Amino acid sequence: MDCVVNCSAYANGRKADSVEIDDIGEVLKRPDTFVWIGLQDPHNDMMKRIQGVFGLHDLAIEDAHRAHQRPKIEAYGEVLFIVLRTAQMNGQNIDHGETHFFLGKNFIVSIRHGSSLSYVDVRARCESTPHLLQKGPAFALYSVMDFIVDQYFPVIAGLEERVAELEDKIFEETSTRETTQLIYLLKRQLLEVKRSVSPLIDICNKLMRFDLRLIDEETRPYFRDVYDHAVRINEMVDNARELLSAALEANLSLISISQNDVSKRFAGWAAIIGVPTMIAGIYGMNFDSMPELQWSYGYPIVLGLIIGMCGLMFYFFRRSGWL
Amino acid sequence: MDCVVNCSAYANGRKADSVEIDDIGEVLKRPDTFVWIGLQDPHNDMMKRIQGVFGLHDLAIEDAHRAHQRPKIEAYGEVLFIVLRTAQMNGQNIDHGETHFFLGKNFIVSIRHGSSLSYVDVRARCESTPHLLQKGPAFALYSVMDFIVDQYFPVIAGLEERVAELEDKIFEETSTRETTQLIYLLKRQLLEVKRSVSPLIDICNKLMRFDLRLIDEETRPYFRDVYDHAVRINEMVDNARELLSAALEANLSLISISQNDVSKRFAGWAAIIGVPTMIAGIYGMNFDSMPELQWSYGYPIVLGLIIGMCGLMFYFFRRSGWL
Amino acid sequence: MDCVVNCSAYANGRKADSVEIDDIGEVLKRPDTFVWIGLQDPHNDMMKRIQGVFGLHDLAIEDAHRAHQRPKIEAYGEVLFIVLRTAQMNGQNIDHGETHFFLGKNFIVSIRHGSSLSYVDVRARCESTPHLLQKGPAFALYSVMDFIVDQYFPVIAGLEERVAELEDKIFEETSTRETTQLIYLLKRQLLEVKRSVSPLIDICNKLMRFDLRLIDEETRPYFRDVYDHAVRINEMVDNARELLSAALEANLSLISISQNDVSKRFAGWAAIIGVPTMIAGIYGMNFDSMPELQWSYGYPIVLGLIIGMCGLMFYFFRRSGWL
Amino acid sequence: MDCVVNCSAYANGRKADSVEIDDIGEVLKRPDTFVWIGLQDPHNDMMKRIQGVFGLHDLAIEDAHRAHQRPKIEAYGEVLFIVLRTAQMNGQNIDHGETHFFLGKNFIVSIRHGSSLSYVDVRARCESTPHLLQKGPAFALYSVMDFIVDQYFPVIAGLEERVAELEDKIFEETSTRETTQLIYLLKRQLLEVKRSVSPLIDICNKLMRFDLRLIDEETRPYFRDVYDHAVRINEMVDNARELLSAALEANLSLISISQNDVSKRFAGWAAIIGVPTMIAGIYGMNFDSMPELQWSYGYPIVLGLIIGMCGLMFYFFRRSGWL
Amino acid sequence: MDCVVNCSAYANGRKADSVEIDDIGEVLKRPDTFVWIGLQDPHNDMMKRIQGVFGLHDLAIEDAHRAHQRPKIEAYGEVLFIVLRTAQMNGQNIDHGETHFFLGKNFIVSIRHGSSLSYVDVRARCESTPHLLQKGPAFALYSVMDFIVDQYFPVIAGLEERVAELEDKIFEETSTRETTQLIYLLKRQLLEVKRSVSPLIDICNKLMRFDLRLIDEETRPYFRDVYDHAVRINEMVDNARELLSAALEANLSLISISQNDVSKRFAGWAAIIGVPTMIAGIYGMNFDSMPELQWSYGYPIVLGLIIGMCGLMFYFFRRSGWL
Repeated sequence: MDCVVNCSAYANGRKADSVEIDDIGEVLKRPDTFVWIGLQDPHNDMMKRIQGVFGLHDLAIEDAHRAHQRPKIEAYGEVLFIVLRTAQMNGQNIDHGETHFFLGKNFIVSIRHGSSLSYVDVRARCESTPHLLQKGPAFALYSVMDFIVDQYFPVIAGLEERVAELEDKIFEETSTRETTQLIYLLKRQLLEVKRSVSPLIDICNKLMRFDLRLIDEETRPYFRDVYDHAVRINEMVDNARELLSAALEANLSLISISQNDVSKRFAGWAAIIGVPTMIAGIYGMNFDSMPELQWSYGYPIVLGLIIGMCGLMFYFFRRSGWL
Repeated sequence: MDCVVNCSAYANGRKADSVEIDDIGEVLKRPDTFVWIGLQDPHNDMMKRIQGVFGLHDLAIEDAHRAHQRPKIEAYGEVLFIVLRTAQMNGQNIDHGETHFFLGKNFIVSIRHGSSLSYVDVRARCESTPHLLQKGPAFALYSVMDFIVDQYFPVIAGLEERVAELEDKIFEETSTRETTQLIYLLKRQLLEVKRSVSPLIDICNKLMRFDLRLIDEETRPYFRDVYDHAVRINEMVDNARELLSAALEANLSLISISQNDVSKRFAGWAAIIGVPTMIAGIYGMNFDSMPELQWSYGYPIVLGLIIGMCGLMFYFFRRSGWL
Repeated sequence: MDCVVNCSAYANGRKADSVEIDDIGEVLKRPDTFVWIGLQDPHNDMMKRIQGVFGLHDLAIEDAHRAHQRPKIEAYGEVLFIVLRTAQMNGQNIDHGETHFFLGKNFIVSIRHGSSLSYVDVRARCESTPHLLQKGPAFALYSVMDFIVDQYFPVIAGLEERVAELEDKIFEETSTRETTQLIYLLKRQLLEVKRSVSPLIDICNKLMRFDLRLIDEETRPYFRDVYDHAVRINEMVDNARELLSAALEANLSLISISQNDVSKRFAGWAAIIGVPTMIAGIYGMNFDSMPELQWSYGYPIVLGLIIGMCGLMFYFFRRSGWL
Repeated sequence: MDCVVNCSAYANGRKADSVEIDDIGEVLKRPDTFVWIGLQDPHNDMMKRIQGVFGLHDLAIEDAHRAHQRPKIEAYGEVLFIVLRTAQMNGQNIDHGETHFFLGKNFIVSIRHGSSLSYVDVRARCESTPHLLQKGPAFALYSVMDFIVDQYFPVIAGLEERVAELEDKIFEETSTRETTQLIYLLKRQLLEVKRSVSPLIDICNKLMRFDLRLIDEETRPYFRDVYDHAVRINEMVDNARELLSAALEANLSLISISQNDVSKRFAGWAAIIGVPTMIAGIYGMNFDSMPELQWSYGYPIVLGLIIGMCGLMFYFFRRSGWL
Repeated sequence: MDCVVNCSAYANGRKADSVEIDDIGEVLKRPDTFVWIGLQDPHNDMMKRIQGVFGLHDLAIEDAHRAHQRPKIEAYGEVLFIVLRTAQMNGQNIDHGETHFFLGKNFIVSIRHGSSLSYVDVRARCESTPHLLQKGPAFALYSVMDFIVDQYFPVIAGLEERVAELEDKIFEETSTRETTQLIYLLKRQLLEVKRSVSPLIDICNKLMRFDLRLIDEETRPYFRDVYDHAVRINEMVDNARELLSAALEANLSLISISQNDVSKRFAGWAAIIGVPTMIAGIYGMNFDSMPELQWSYGYPIVLGLIIGMCGLMFYFFRRSGWL
């Protein structure tokens, strides 16, 4: 499988040519032209060629080749190296992937690792607005970042929905081992999303402030927009986490209350069963002279007494909420 | 429905004219004049016209058109874009809305989304103090912000009252599932209010410090006043949240204590019922020679013994607080 | 009731005159002279007159007239506006009040709201050290602030004492609903004191650093002293809060342990009552041929067996700490 | 009792003379000479004399005379005023004391309050390294500070040991009220040590950076060394606190598990006692025609049945861990 | 045992000579040459010789000789002193060691204390890339630091695996004392790793920014790489800690739920045993006239009634999840 998804030159914001990796050197000499390369899970050789063409730093290439980095931004001389994590809902699970970028004065390389949506649509959208794309590779970077960050909104909406379902479960049903496990799993997922999202804020901040010719004044508001979305996603995650903590506490309270209810109900019924047993026991004693036993109405009277006492107890327990 | 609520020009702090959106260009050429436009849930076309007249940035227009932003302040060149969230009590619930502002050198546009009070009264009050309104559109911004922030005081007073009610419930009644649910719901509401209010502090801070000609030295103390209110609301929310946490902990303790009480009471009564059952059982045994059974006073003595022991147990349990 | 408690002019640190509000303008023209006015719950007119004489800002006057501000310091041009909260023990409760200050180059106005001690003594003490008072109104401000802050020490000592009492209650007696309520109330009081005290640190910090002619180099160590006391009070409050949290956790543990004890004791006695009942039941069966029943010593043997088993159980339960 | 422990002049790092307080003025005129005074719980007069000799600030003298300050560093003109808290193990308790310092260009005064080790040894050690002591009074300050900070290591080692003992108690024995009380007491002690130690970091930091002639470039690494120790002690305290929190949580879990065990064991034995009682009850009924009662092997069969069922129940409960 | 593991001179990145400690002075005079010394648990004399040769500070030598420092970086004039902690899995335990460095313009000394892997391989790898090693001793420092930091990845992977095992234990089995103890032990280990790793971030940060000739522009990206790894390890530790906290909470909930289950099951069976006992008791009463007793089908009817009621109760308890 070829790992080069797309490699095109753009002049004044318009697609000029699909170029081969080895011809890039030539293309970059043209004025107002930049190259946008999209790679997917590239093999070692390809990374070496890319490094050769753009003169990238060893350490960055090493990082870009391995996945499982944390989101970060690093400047190597005139080149920015950026790592982002992507996320997508996949049923009840979240699939995480990674995308790395090399951003230079007249080139951008994006490298996708693991499961993530294709950036074909993003590129097409960019090509349809040449007046924006002519701002250079920084705008291409913005477009992909914006796309990646916006992918988090449905993910978090999904998690929020599950928190809401959890609330219903907690307050409407009895707490089960499954509820507790669900809380735990949601916590773990939120933790993972948090780790992917929170460094984004810092990355966007640096992109907005970098004292570099790479990102010009006009492009910065676009990165501020990505920053704003990242902050919002971050807040939504924090919010969901706080709700989850509150739900956990409520769950614990309700388990205790339910334990109380069980104890009360048990105590009530134990009394209602225990009192007749006691009375019957007394009239089961074998004393020679127990006058009540000879009375003709002794039995029905005692039976009535027992039933009456049980009824009374039932009434009082019910009234005080024990039954 | 027309989405333009009001569109007027002000010269030297006095209302000069109601103007049409398309005539604004003319009006803005006059010296010492600014335009104040109030929109409500504007449709797409209107936003385009507003954008055209004032030369606003694409990204800001996009944000302003969609609701569900987080409170923020952003500078696009000479224009400030501000997003605030509004809140109002509606029975037990809190209705949240949003208001966006574009503030320029000689114009201010306010855009209401969702449920929020009308700003007609604010505008009227401003018009009644021309010496203040002549400070320019920044003063109009202050007036509406002050109005929005002051709306939070009754909201929080309402929440504080419900926390106080909760305290009474916790300490005076038995803990029920409803108490726990109420704590949870209050927590969620406070969380939401917190999210609306806490960015306000940062926004006011920036308005007080912005190195811009938009807000002059004289108007800044007014924004500091809004800042002060925002800080106060924020503190009230934090306070209510801490009280709620303390209430939750107290609630948990009380549930456990109540569980203890149930156990103790149950144990006490179980003993009072169990001891007679045991004694009766013994005198119900069928041994041929059980001398007590032949005694003429055997039965009353045993009965007396049973009653005496029960009385004694009752007395001791009561004294040690188990019954 | 007149709301002017005292209004005097000081020249070179010595009291020159009691002056009328309306004569202040004249007095302030003298060199090395400042005016110190003390107001209590002033009415609207008085505030207007004060505003007129010293040229104070509308917003500050508005704040100073309403109580229930948060402690803060604000500069309006050359005038500082300071809000402090006061506290006093009143039996088991804490009475909170407010004092506002306007500090100018040659005047200081203090405005008391709600319950707080009179500043007559402070003024007298200042007047007895003219070499200090001649440092100007900033020294008068220091004196009152020092007095206010020192009022917190007995308040916190009182709260610490109640925390210590609580400790004794928790570890020496059984946990009751009252203990839990007491923890909650102490938490609430500490929260309130915290809110009053913690902004003091920031206020003193600003007073020590303010780039203003109002507070000269020589007076600053005095504000650092107040700062130091504020930090100390703050730490004492935090300390008490941490102790309270630890006490709460200990309380919860002890409730659970006590629940364990109840369960164990109940289980032990249940066994001691249940075993005789079971044995008696067996010898109460009506089988025709139960040889034990005919034995002459059957009854005493079974009785002995029962008593022996109960004794044994009692011994074992006691040894393992269940009874 | 005289409160002057030692008062000596040092020239070029060597002890020149024991001097009287009143002769200090003379001594300080000599070049390369500094005075090191050690006081213990000084009375008011002595403080006044010290103040007179070195020209110290009123506020500092006031603080130095009263104990119960928080650790701090304050500059009064050319003089530094430093407050440190000392700690020593005393059996299970920790004795806290205070030492205050005045550090000037050519003098250092140390004032001990409450229980703390004598600084005689420290002085002796300093005198044995004249090449270091000639760096001036700052080195003397370093020596005493180092001594004070190093006193905390055994204190914390003692607390860590008690935390380790607590671990053993929690995991090997049953939780008792004493365990809970021990956790609470350790928490309180750690809190107190924390309060004494954590300001040290800030104090050392300031000593390392102070833009003053008091501490020269060469002496700073020594204060960095004290800083390093303070940071380490602080970390050890934090570590012990986190361990304690974890131990508390483990304790709570174990109490609940133990409660579970009690309930299960009780339930098991209740069944083993309850079933025979039920069967015996049935054969104790007085129906005229109960064929089993006439069977010659009725009694042994039922007895066998009862014993068999109890055995079976015992086996199953044991296997499922309830007994 | 000799404590010098290796002592070599490097010229232009290539190994020139193994040198004796005492000849180092000579070697360092050659241009483009640096010396790399590896020591292990050095004795006092060796440290003195090293100090003499490179002119190191007393305090640093003192620290370097004692183990049990916290990770730190300190500049003594032109020499950096660095302390790192190492970690290795050893079955279920983690072995911690320490490595200290002295980094000068043309020398590096590494001192290993306690259990840690040998740096022979690191040195070999460095020698195989002379173009990198010629950057000087800073690159040698980088190589060893990188090696030390990378040792943490398997340690944390091991801890993460144990957290995952714990999850399975918690959600699939019943909570036992062992689970709780395991949580506690994992917490303690994570706490220890955290203490070793978190200061690394600060150390790398300082190495990247130090305003020194020791680390040139070209070598800094390498330290940023170590920084990046340290941040990642730190995040992994924090993540594992948060998961552990969540697991602990889940564990507590599950213990309570399991307690609830025990109570419910007990209550159910108690009812199923108690009701027959009660009925049998009633028909065991000795009244003269109890018509049911004379009925020929009295016994089977009552027996049927008892069995029917028990069956019914069993059905209802099962349906409501109590059994």
